[in-house]
Amino acid sequence: MSTAPPPSATATLLVSCSDRRGIVAALGQLLYGHGANILHADQYSDAASGQFFQRIQFDMSELHTDRHTLERAVDEVAERFAMRHHIAYGEQRKRVALLVSKYDHCMHDLLWRTASGELPCDIPLVISNHADLAPLAAQYNIPFFHLPVTKETKAQQEAAVVEHLEQFDIDLVVLARYMQILSTPFCERYRERLINIHHSFLPAFIGSRPYHRAHERGVKIIGATAHYATGDLDEGPIIEQDVVRVSHSDTVNDLIRKGRDLERLVLARAIRLHLQDRVLVHQNKTVIFE
Amino acid sequence: MSTAPPPSATATLLVSCSDRRGIVAALGQLLYGHGANILHADQYSDAASGQFFQRIQFDMSELHTDRHTLERAVDEVAERFAMRHHIAYGEQRKRVALLVSKYDHCMHDLLWRTASGELPCDIPLVISNHADLAPLAAQYNIPFFHLPVTKETKAQQEAAVVEHLEQFDIDLVVLARYMQILSTPFCERYRERLINIHHSFLPAFIGSRPYHRAHERGVKIIGATAHYATGDLDEGPIIEQDVVRVSHSDTVNDLIRKGRDLERLVLARAIRLHLQDRVLVHQNKTVIFE
Amino acid sequence: MSTAPPPSATATLLVSCSDRRGIVAALGQLLYGHGANILHADQYSDAASGQFFQRIQFDMSELHTDRHTLERAVDEVAERFAMRHHIAYGEQRKRVALLVSKYDHCMHDLLWRTASGELPCDIPLVISNHADLAPLAAQYNIPFFHLPVTKETKAQQEAAVVEHLEQFDIDLVVLARYMQILSTPFCERYRERLINIHHSFLPAFIGSRPYHRAHERGVKIIGATAHYATGDLDEGPIIEQDVVRVSHSDTVNDLIRKGRDLERLVLARAIRLHLQDRVLVHQNKTVIFE
Amino acid sequence: MSTAPPPSATATLLVSCSDRRGIVAALGQLLYGHGANILHADQYSDAASGQFFQRIQFDMSELHTDRHTLERAVDEVAERFAMRHHIAYGEQRKRVALLVSKYDHCMHDLLWRTASGELPCDIPLVISNHADLAPLAAQYNIPFFHLPVTKETKAQQEAAVVEHLEQFDIDLVVLARYMQILSTPFCERYRERLINIHHSFLPAFIGSRPYHRAHERGVKIIGATAHYATGDLDEGPIIEQDVVRVSHSDTVNDLIRKGRDLERLVLARAIRLHLQDRVLVHQNKTVIFE
Repeated sequence: MSTAPPPSATATLLVSCSDRRGIVAALGQLLYGHGANILHADQYSDAASGQFFQRIQFDMSELHTDRHTLERAVDEVAERFAMRHHIAYGEQRKRVALLVSKYDHCMHDLLWRTASGELPCDIPLVISNHADLAPLAAQYNIPFFHLPVTKETKAQQEAAVVEHLEQFDIDLVVLARYMQILSTPFCERYRERLINIHHSFLPAFIGSRPYHRAHERGVKIIGATAHYATGDLDEGPIIEQDVVRVSHSDTVNDLIRKGRDLERLVLARAIRLHLQDRVLVHQNKTVIFE
Repeated sequence: MSTAPPPSATATLLVSCSDRRGIVAALGQLLYGHGANILHADQYSDAASGQFFQRIQFDMSELHTDRHTLERAVDEVAERFAMRHHIAYGEQRKRVALLVSKYDHCMHDLLWRTASGELPCDIPLVISNHADLAPLAAQYNIPFFHLPVTKETKAQQEAAVVEHLEQFDIDLVVLARYMQILSTPFCERYRERLINIHHSFLPAFIGSRPYHRAHERGVKIIGATAHYATGDLDEGPIIEQDVVRVSHSDTVNDLIRKGRDLERLVLARAIRLHLQDRVLVHQNKTVIFE
Repeated sequence: MSTAPPPSATATLLVSCSDRRGIVAALGQLLYGHGANILHADQYSDAASGQFFQRIQFDMSELHTDRHTLERAVDEVAERFAMRHHIAYGEQRKRVALLVSKYDHCMHDLLWRTASGELPCDIPLVISNHADLAPLAAQYNIPFFHLPVTKETKAQQEAAVVEHLEQFDIDLVVLARYMQILSTPFCERYRERLINIHHSFLPAFIGSRPYHRAHERGVKIIGATAHYATGDLDEGPIIEQDVVRVSHSDTVNDLIRKGRDLERLVLARAIRLHLQDRVLVHQNKTVIFE
Repeated sequence: MSTAPPPSATATLLVSCSDRRGIVAALGQLLYGHGANILHADQYSDAASGQFFQRIQFDMSELHTDRHTLERAVDEVAERFAMRHHIAYGEQRKRVALLVSKYDHCMHDLLWRTASGELPCDIPLVISNHADLAPLAAQYNIPFFHLPVTKETKAQQEAAVVEHLEQFDIDLVVLARYMQILSTPFCERYRERLINIHHSFLPAFIGSRPYHRAHERGVKIIGATAHYATGDLDEGPIIEQDVVRVSHSDTVNDLIRKGRDLERLVLARAIRLHLQDRVLVHQNKTVIFE
């Protein structure tokens, strides 16, 4: 194989199940038998929980059979091993919704990365509880929905958000510094499809004003964390984290400034991992196949 | 000045006070007037608290007057500006006590760094609540005192520790993975002269078993923190922190292994900063003049 | 001092000279005598070269005299010590020109940072040898000049670039992935006012296609370097560098993608340091007062 | 599988060959058929060169057949796919020789890591061209051979080194700051079994005195590189690299001090990767299965 197939001709199979002998052989044999060429395969067995995880990316361009037949064959193996499994096709770009408030840095960065082809997804809409970032969405010709929220209208607004997400057939919801806490049912609905960026090195500084609290504590390093949001605030499975050094001479505003760069990078990396089907969740932790 | 003076011919002045005009000029004039040549000067004004901090390292080899006269002159300026101040002379190596338990990695590292001349201090004794590391102390010909402790003898044992520290005229106490919580009076007695290494990125995972908890939380980065110990466990002023990436495939033992390297480096850097009089404490935070 | 003065009320004095006794005292006394309050002062003496460097940022809002008198007084001290010196006033925002080609990531990032107030400068024009990025400049309402270049027109085009820079009264020229080598006279004209971002960890991979060469060499870390451009390609004084890990599975395109983030951050940090008058150059090296 | 098998009951299979369909299925089937349980499997296909690489670690404790039968089966598959392959058994600890000169930091670190069980190997001898580190070897009860070298005796001394390595049945030779250039035949003899630590971020500062040259160039980051030594000085396949920030105020001695910590960590990580059979070499680059 001297050249890589185009991403649109590939598919990715993610599986997890209780570990036992023969899984790798069974899946390898299955794909080989259908004419699929394995491009990358990563596997991880967690000794503590006895759980098995695998990601297989394969070339479909010389498949002997059709996609439907392959899927049925995978279903059969999955049933045999009691697997949780998922196949993602490279030709189906994921549809991503951005939820934002007033801060523009993450939204700015994600729109640029998507427009430049770095993030393989479509962004069909942006939703915000404020109107401030409408012009930025307009620059990229992306529909922007202003859904303001008050303490009294919280439930209705969230229902409106869901309605928009459903209408636009969204695969992944990104909270790009969206300054509202979402309800547990919302988080459950988008379980493992809802990525938040928290502006601290979790589990340090859970909740609000992490930069202020980091400054007050006098830490020498600050961080940012991208995680799947769950009903437990800032307690969901961590996808990616990174840090930057600070010093006594950095004010809270300096921490906010340095943190912006972290937030942008960490969020973009987490989204990329998700879009490429590199993340598996098990017991509130992620297995990342890079 | 084409060559640096030997460290033994230098002195370091640390001052802090409420910020006001003329401090820098007054100290600069004073040192100039006595024939001291300023080698390094760092200054920091904290706008939020209105506090001024300065570290001046100067060459004493061509002093017009004597050390005593210089000290009296500094006292006078200090009184005028209501300064907290301290002069450390390069020729007086600090005397450091190590408190250890069973883990050898930090002790091993610090003894090697001291013996190789990297850390400018003397280590006249090692104290431990276990006998395990006596042979390591013996390799470096350092007196080792085994002071075992039980729940019942905690107060007496701590008193014995203090007695040893006093007898050996110790300037700095280093808790090199000493697995005992020290009393508040002990911490107060060695206030700002008692450095602990905590095996997490504080304020995450305060208290015991931080690697186990980091593993359970599924973080992607672990850390270590060196701080001045106070009566509040793991809440003292942070001197230095560092981190290392981990992944889902790292077991708790892998975290412990990776963490050992962090602990060694972070603790050694913090001690070095302290030994070179580069740390000033204000309101539970450190100003570090690197 | 319980609140920091606005940046527009401050000034920054940068000096360098042969080290000798009394410099710090003389400058401290001078500023104190004129009613200037020192906010930050950093000083560095290079033992090897015997050179002294200082940066003093001071509050001008309660000056006893006027700016002209202060400047003359500084001139006098500077003459006495044979200093090279420069005063920058916070109220005078530096005027920055961007030179770009086809890559948009650095330009995009710098325009956003400037618009958001993170970088304290004005960008009155963008010059490019290609037309591609004109729309991006238009989004920010910045005049864009397309000055195409061929091997034959190199000298004339560079003359046109200079003409534009002079006409717009530019203080700093930023080569934001400008894919042309500038002549030595050009570099000399903008000596220490011309910042380039090179997409490697200099001095590794000087010249063209550094990501391709890094991939071929099989390095485990790639980098980016911001430096003052000189007539010697990629040999000018380094202002800032940073790195990111890569692995065998990263293709050249992955290196380019990861490198884009590095380039953006490193260039922005270097420009910020320059804009805040934190960089002094001596013998092809920089002294950075952070 | 709720507990991991002891390392001594596992084996690791490394293979590389031209990529084609069916390799993964064939190896998976083979191991399954013999009762080997795959614990970890990593695979990488290099699109540019069309080369396939795989590392499979498996549990041998419930093998249906014997080791010899398994090896013959692997040989057959290897022949079919024209594979280069190697099986390492967990119960066979690798035998490592250290070659040192006068610097003790890497040797000190490696002996401690090995004694503490962190590095799974035996160190049956240390060879040096100087006598200085004999006492350190004695502390760990390791035979130390002083083989001095002059310009005239270079060939004979190297022959003596080889003789010792052969006599002690050495699997891996570590140049732990050994300050002699080894001949090409020596490097060929220990091809991919000879690890050197170079005190720079290769390919920057190849050759001697890299810290001095880094200081002269004014870099803001220094590095260390562990690589398999080849006949081309500092040009062999890179296994691991890391970096640390430096500033204008760091002297050459500061760089050397900071670099020592880097060298220790980078060398130890590279050796660990090699000992765990995680490194495959192809065309002067490494594939690292972490």
